[in-house]
Amino acid sequence: MYTYKRKAQFHETDRMGIIHHSNYIKWMEEARVGMMDLLGVSYRDMEDKYRIGSPVVSVNVDYKKYVEFGDELEIEVSVKKYNGAILEVCYNIVNRTKDQLAATAWSKHCFLKDGKLVSLKHEIPELDRSFREELKKDTTE
Amino acid sequence: MYTYKRKAQFHETDRMGIIHHSNYIKWMEEARVGMMDLLGVSYRDMEDKYRIGSPVVSVNVDYKKYVEFGDELEIEVSVKKYNGAILEVCYNIVNRTKDQLAATAWSKHCFLKDGKLVSLKHEIPELDRSFREELKKDTTE
Amino acid sequence: MYTYKRKAQFHETDRMGIIHHSNYIKWMEEARVGMMDLLGVSYRDMEDKYRIGSPVVSVNVDYKKYVEFGDELEIEVSVKKYNGAILEVCYNIVNRTKDQLAATAWSKHCFLKDGKLVSLKHEIPELDRSFREELKKDTTE
Amino acid sequence: MYTYKRKAQFHETDRMGIIHHSNYIKWMEEARVGMMDLLGVSYRDMEDKYRIGSPVVSVNVDYKKYVEFGDELEIEVSVKKYNGAILEVCYNIVNRTKDQLAATAWSKHCFLKDGKLVSLKHEIPELDRSFREELKKDTTE
Repeated sequence: MYTYKRKAQFHETDRMGIIHHSNYIKWMEEARVGMMDLLGVSYRDMEDKYRIGSPVVSVNVDYKKYVEFGDELEIEVSVKKYNGAILEVCYNIVNRTKDQLAATAWSKHCFLKDGKLVSLKHEIPELDRSFREELKKDTTE
Repeated sequence: MYTYKRKAQFHETDRMGIIHHSNYIKWMEEARVGMMDLLGVSYRDMEDKYRIGSPVVSVNVDYKKYVEFGDELEIEVSVKKYNGAILEVCYNIVNRTKDQLAATAWSKHCFLKDGKLVSLKHEIPELDRSFREELKKDTTE
Repeated sequence: MYTYKRKAQFHETDRMGIIHHSNYIKWMEEARVGMMDLLGVSYRDMEDKYRIGSPVVSVNVDYKKYVEFGDELEIEVSVKKYNGAILEVCYNIVNRTKDQLAATAWSKHCFLKDGKLVSLKHEIPELDRSFREELKKDTTE
Repeated sequence: MYTYKRKAQFHETDRMGIIHHSNYIKWMEEARVGMMDLLGVSYRDMEDKYRIGSPVVSVNVDYKKYVEFGDELEIEVSVKKYNGAILEVCYNIVNRTKDQLAATAWSKHCFLKDGKLVSLKHEIPELDRSFREELKKDTTE
């Protein structure tokens, strides 16, 4: 599990006075990118060096408590499923300012090269190993 | 069912050359707001005249086909469940330029007044009736 | 002059209850893209067929009156300066719901091919002609 | 002068493969909010405790060098003009990854209470003093 820290910004609020729900999707991506930075192959290297994209296949968010401007967030991100071809990531969005679980979420991703589905096992073995280790950690935690 | 029309914008693209997945959440809201405009009580009136907010409780998107800058979209929005207290809306995001179903999605909403859950049946009977009629239409279509 | 029509969206509001100022920059782009659609070479074709990008060099906005959720906007966009290499576009953001000038703005653009500055006169003569005609119209209006 | 640090995010990129220009406006706000956190009265307190809003009157950005996904940014923010009623803030957006000045910018703000222009001198004397000290520092630096 990796924890990504982030402050809720003014420009993310809406007229209800709270953070607009669309921003959580961006925070999840930031946390996912942060996790990959620690796994040895960054998201940017995956795209630029290996020419592999990792589009989002599905996304789900359960909003539990409002987040407000200035709140300190910790986004706990972990690998839920992984088999080389499909990656499932789950997220706890924790509001440290209010000591509340603000939201839980998950996202599902595949891997594409030249428009075709590929397995990371063959394409980037070191990243494949990192995801498998992360998966083991996250299921035994 | 209501169909909301929208063009995919340049500022919505990302470095993969496609529309960033977070924007679909915004489009769903635009379509939902558009549907309510036709139901007799606009989203803005609900908030400003009746002091009722309708926060998003959950959201789910299944991305099926890329959308690109300039693509013409039709977002079909319909009421899936409704009981006065909880509203579930579902969406087909259709790419008219490519004649493809780009994504399916749903969102779940509650109704709040002064921070407390309320039923629209008591608070805004005419909107309650409209949602029930919409629900009937959408389940018999 | 071309007029681009647009509704102010819920997801564009902020906790002051008004449209967040960063969105005006996106509206200006939408209006600019809409203008180019009418000039015979779309922004997307410029990028995809001619491999020419048109980055923003400077941008300036003077905010005059608040815009609120649901307000109907008309963005009048016109060519202020153009010499083949540099394009200056100006904008009046008119709030039709309140019959107010919400903002005035301008943006300055250059043209790049393979990372080098180019003149549209040589690269896309028909678009060059369209911009010159637009410039003439806008200065004689 | 206050320096705000920030990484350029994937969701901020566009189909040119660079950070979309509209995001700089959001970064400027984040830096401004960060500066105020150090001045003793946070932006949120100004709004929530003192009921004073600080809308953006004008904004200007000169884009100098592209910023890419993953680039480490330092946004140097300083007070350029201040007289109690009007605040002008200027920004250097420095790309630390590429050791480049990515953009320079400024923004102009007024102060509003109950919809009327007010002077911070009377409304929040301690914030007024902080802005004046900041102004002195920034003009003598």
